[in-house]
Amino acid sequence: RTVTDHLVVFQGNHDPVMVATGTLITEAARRADVVINQPCGGQGRCGRCAVAVNGQGVRRRSTLRLSPADIEEGYALACQAVIEGDLRIRLLPQESIERRLTTDRTVAKISVPEGYAVENQSIRRLTLNLPAPTVDDQTDDWSRLQKALHQAGYHRVELSLPLLRRLGPALREGSWTVTVVIDSPWGGTTRLIDILPGEIPAAEPLWSAAVDVGTTTITVWLVDLMTGEVRAQSAEYNGQIARGEDVISRIIFASKNSGAEDLRKLALDTINSLVKITCGRVLADPRKVVKAAISGNSTMLHLLLGVPAESIRLAPFITAVNQPPPLTAADLELDIHPEASVDCLPGVASYVGADITAGVLASGVDDSEEVSLFIDVGTNGEIVLGSRDWLVTCACSAGPAFEGAGVMDGVRAAKGAIEEVWINAETFEPTFRVIGGGKPRGICGSGLISLLAELFLTGVLDKAGNINSRLSTARIRTGPHGLEYVIAWRHETSHERDITLKRPDIDNLLRAKAAIYAGFTVLAEAVGYPLEAASRVLIGGAFGKYINIEKAVEIGLLPDLPWEQFHFLGNTSVKGAYLSLLDQEARSRINDIAGRMTYVELSADNSFYEAFTSALFLPHTDVSLFPSVARELALTAGEEMME
Amino acid sequence: RTVTDHLVVFQGNHDPVMVATGTLITEAARRADVVINQPCGGQGRCGRCAVAVNGQGVRRRSTLRLSPADIEEGYALACQAVIEGDLRIRLLPQESIERRLTTDRTVAKISVPEGYAVENQSIRRLTLNLPAPTVDDQTDDWSRLQKALHQAGYHRVELSLPLLRRLGPALREGSWTVTVVIDSPWGGTTRLIDILPGEIPAAEPLWSAAVDVGTTTITVWLVDLMTGEVRAQSAEYNGQIARGEDVISRIIFASKNSGAEDLRKLALDTINSLVKITCGRVLADPRKVVKAAISGNSTMLHLLLGVPAESIRLAPFITAVNQPPPLTAADLELDIHPEASVDCLPGVASYVGADITAGVLASGVDDSEEVSLFIDVGTNGEIVLGSRDWLVTCACSAGPAFEGAGVMDGVRAAKGAIEEVWINAETFEPTFRVIGGGKPRGICGSGLISLLAELFLTGVLDKAGNINSRLSTARIRTGPHGLEYVIAWRHETSHERDITLKRPDIDNLLRAKAAIYAGFTVLAEAVGYPLEAASRVLIGGAFGKYINIEKAVEIGLLPDLPWEQFHFLGNTSVKGAYLSLLDQEARSRINDIAGRMTYVELSADNSFYEAFTSALFLPHTDVSLFPSVARELALTAGEEMME
Repeated sequence: RTVTDHLVVFQGNHDPVMVATGTLITEAARRADVVINQPCGGQGRCGRCAVAVNGQGVRRRSTLRLSPADIEEGYALACQAVIEGDLRIRLLPQESIERRLTTDRTVAKISVPEGYAVENQSIRRLTLNLPAPTVDDQTDDWSRLQKALHQAGYHRVELSLPLLRRLGPALREGSWTVTVVIDSPWGGTTRLIDILPGEIPAAEPLWSAAVDVGTTTITVWLVDLMTGEVRAQSAEYNGQIARGEDVISRIIFASKNSGAEDLRKLALDTINSLVKITCGRVLADPRKVVKAAISGNSTMLHLLLGVPAESIRLAPFITAVNQPPPLTAADLELDIHPEASVDCLPGVASYVGADITAGVLASGVDDSEEVSLFIDVGTNGEIVLGSRDWLVTCACSAGPAFEGAGVMDGVRAAKGAIEEVWINAETFEPTFRVIGGGKPRGICGSGLISLLAELFLTGVLDKAGNINSRLSTARIRTGPHGLEYVIAWRHETSHERDITLKRPDIDNLLRAKAAIYAGFTVLAEAVGYPLEAASRVLIGGAFGKYINIEKAVEIGLLPDLPWEQFHFLGNTSVKGAYLSLLDQEARSRINDIAGRMTYVELSADNSFYEAFTSALFLPHTDVSLFPSVARELALTAGEEMME
Repeated sequence: RTVTDHLVVFQGNHDPVMVATGTLITEAARRADVVINQPCGGQGRCGRCAVAVNGQGVRRRSTLRLSPADIEEGYALACQAVIEGDLRIRLLPQESIERRLTTDRTVAKISVPEGYAVENQSIRRLTLNLPAPTVDDQTDDWSRLQKALHQAGYHRVELSLPLLRRLGPALREGSWTVTVVIDSPWGGTTRLIDILPGEIPAAEPLWSAAVDVGTTTITVWLVDLMTGEVRAQSAEYNGQIARGEDVISRIIFASKNSGAEDLRKLALDTINSLVKITCGRVLADPRKVVKAAISGNSTMLHLLLGVPAESIRLAPFITAVNQPPPLTAADLELDIHPEASVDCLPGVASYVGADITAGVLASGVDDSEEVSLFIDVGTNGEIVLGSRDWLVTCACSAGPAFEGAGVMDGVRAAKGAIEEVWINAETFEPTFRVIGGGKPRGICGSGLISLLAELFLTGVLDKAGNINSRLSTARIRTGPHGLEYVIAWRHETSHERDITLKRPDIDNLLRAKAAIYAGFTVLAEAVGYPLEAASRVLIGGAFGKYINIEKAVEIGLLPDLPWEQFHFLGNTSVKGAYLSLLDQEARSRINDIAGRMTYVELSADNSFYEAFTSALFLPHTDVSLFPSVARELALTAGEEMME
């Protein structure tokens, strides 16, 4: 021990650690196996990694989120606190990340959709009967197998060293009858994936996995390639979530120390655990999963591959790779068959990733004569406008407001979140629905959209989002951030604090919805196609599942089209990955989509700023774009006149 | 600890180990990090792993090599001794395996031979200047590099995940100028091997390694691919030698417990250490070696690749693979650039491996209008007869007699070995030359050939190899194995025991030379080509370096052709590997050779047995095949008549 080493003790059942001067508390925590969530990725922005420090040996690099009183009491942000002496650290209760597992085992049966053929898949399982060698036929094992493969129509099949090691024993154990699994992927080389002695009954499933790596949630579908059926599904929070809630925070986290490796392992662990869970449900051995198709946004795929993602964050926003090379499970350390092919689907740009190309395939936008608007709203909003003939796309940095972040009482869409709000137009009293029932602890994205629409239509908010202080209700009051509206009083909440919507929250929500609507506008202008002429609005992503279209149109988040033209497609990213496993034509179509999509970089576009500014109002500066909302407002005004 | 666990203590500075009942002493030794040589691979045949055991807890599975007195004194063969109780084990002095390093740094300079062009190699190092990305050109890094590669004439270049991880940082560190190393191997796919920021001076060497994995010796040549020059050479005993001296012993050792993995690592360690040594001599970093070509017999390559070799030993003698797939250094765990291409050269059959195809290339047999006889005598004798128009090959199980094994006073060709013998025709007194000078401790292969020839020509041995007991010399006496000839008295030897040649030794030597000569006969008969019409006898392998042609002809080991037709080519296996690195046409020629060579399996050939029996005599039953020997014998007989 030298004078530059310090003893750090975390409260609770943790081993003390010795660290050098200059180490951050988050790093010391990592070494002591103490989990400290860093929703902003360790930038000191969110304030949620605060800990209580006992001792003088700490230097606070940033106190942005701490009051002088906090500091007085010994609080420090773990991600900003530099250790300079011995410390005893007390952990504060953290917002726990609940495991959101799809435990519902009665999910709708998903099987090969019309227009796709499981016979077109890249995987084949073949039983081959080889002639036994003799002194007159001393052909080596691999040439003997190659001859049989040749006869079965497979020329130039690649063989890995681990399989070469198993070849001789398999041939002899099966008395020169072997079953091989071969992958001939679209645009790639044909590879041997497995060699098994003897014959395998055709009824035996041939497992593959479709994976969507979302910023918030990772989803796995387990697919039997013999029938094309999805046999099990599972989803869970991306394990990276404790290291940053949005892609930017993650990239920042990844750029520090062992951050990239940490994030890679967290995503990998989540996928491996989901594969294990789905396999467990159908009593399948994960090591028998012979192929995986992985979709996800560009940042998620970079982090999963362990490829530096820093350039995604910085202008001019460049990915290392849009179309990752063919990989194996062993390359990625996926706990499936080590020789399994891993197909990472292609993206288009830093903020239009494989989740969108897969989503376009799954939604059929690229295959229809009709012009569709496809949107996937998550932390970012990605938009595609197009048809069989043309496709344009852009990404709007909506920010995480619709995921409950950037709003002081915002929470993720989980148990205890207010997901829908109704406001009485006379009393301004709200009623709401809470996910999982019980008392609320915050309000999630769909709840915020609903709340904003209700506040606007009941006149609590004006076009510019200002709270009307002249209304006679205790719900409107002045707080430390100016005027605010109280949705739930402390006695009604689970954490016994009022749940309110404040002016800064409203600004964040307006910016988020304006960014998305401006995206629509710019895309439509870019191709000279009027938005209102779109035949369909296709909504992908988990977000879409919960939002109320009517409310979303009312705040000007979605274009004002007839409701029957809106379709919720669920997780189109995993669905696209699934289709790519089933049918090589689908797989080739995804590449085609990636190649055909014209990417419009909004940060380089002046018209975006103009469209954004116009969309910062409720529903929009140009109300004629929202005729149904205009009618509703006129009706409300009429009612008021009638009174 | 249970009753089935036993404490085993090896004498010396070794940690005691606990083992279960039934464990072999060799296995216990392995766990205690005690090295016990097993020249026969643990079959209990050679007796050289004997240890002294203190305690009753041992069961001797075989005592073939132990006398009742030995057992009385507590000796046991480590490879055959089953532990059944606590034991204290004393190690006996073992024949140490000297590190035979080519420390000679003044080896002849080897550079691109005539007819080969270093420009035809598969490796290219290119500097590429890429346009920097902008908001208007958001092409991803990999596509950007691919475009530049395309312009340089490289289409479809494969990229590994580790390189993808380094791509972005390299591009940015080099300000969009990078140097790439690409391999476009003959018959394979083009791969990126390295990406380095900035430019690299053309004078900077581009390292590659030619490797010959011999049963006894491993050789590495370090080659600068910019000039084609061999910049350093090194050779050392194959680390596997302590686990069996011939390929059969090794295969048997590999088939037991972790034997295969043990052998794989031993060969790998030897190669890695040789690469380190050669690199050290020219101050090169082993991680900058970007390609390796590996030659060796089929068993050695199987063991190095970790591919089961059992089927090589058992009829019908099948290899798992004659032409290993393209591999990387990481696949093999070679300590060079992890992405380096590793090209394992193709063999023809279980006992005609890559060392022979490479040898044929290096010797030029396949490229000449003249008919040549190419032989590589090591533990096995491989023979090729042919020309530009045809090639036939066979392998003779000569056994290790010419490597000093199977002969009681036989030793390997190392310090203290008698390498040449002369016998006075009147007194029958020998004079000899010892490797390294000093007192001898045994007699090596070339010494045995020399001795056999001298004994025959001086009439000590008759045609059938019988010792003439009627000669009046103390050198001829009767020992426990019958008549024997004393080469050195105990006071003349380093180990103070007489060095003798016994009847069983003579039989082994006759069988060895007969096997090889019968191989010549069968090959010549197979193609109807008279052996004596061959224009050249090309001798490859380390063995060839030391033998005296005259003596080898006199005993009937080599055909009786004019001396000027014999050529010693040295290590043709490593030379062939070297040529394959230089020139892709040479590499393709090796495959051509492997494909063209007709392999004659001697064990399936009746004519072999007949030829073998005829060749069991000195020089042969048909002396007319050896006219020069016949003349010499006539002359000697004449001299005797004259006396």
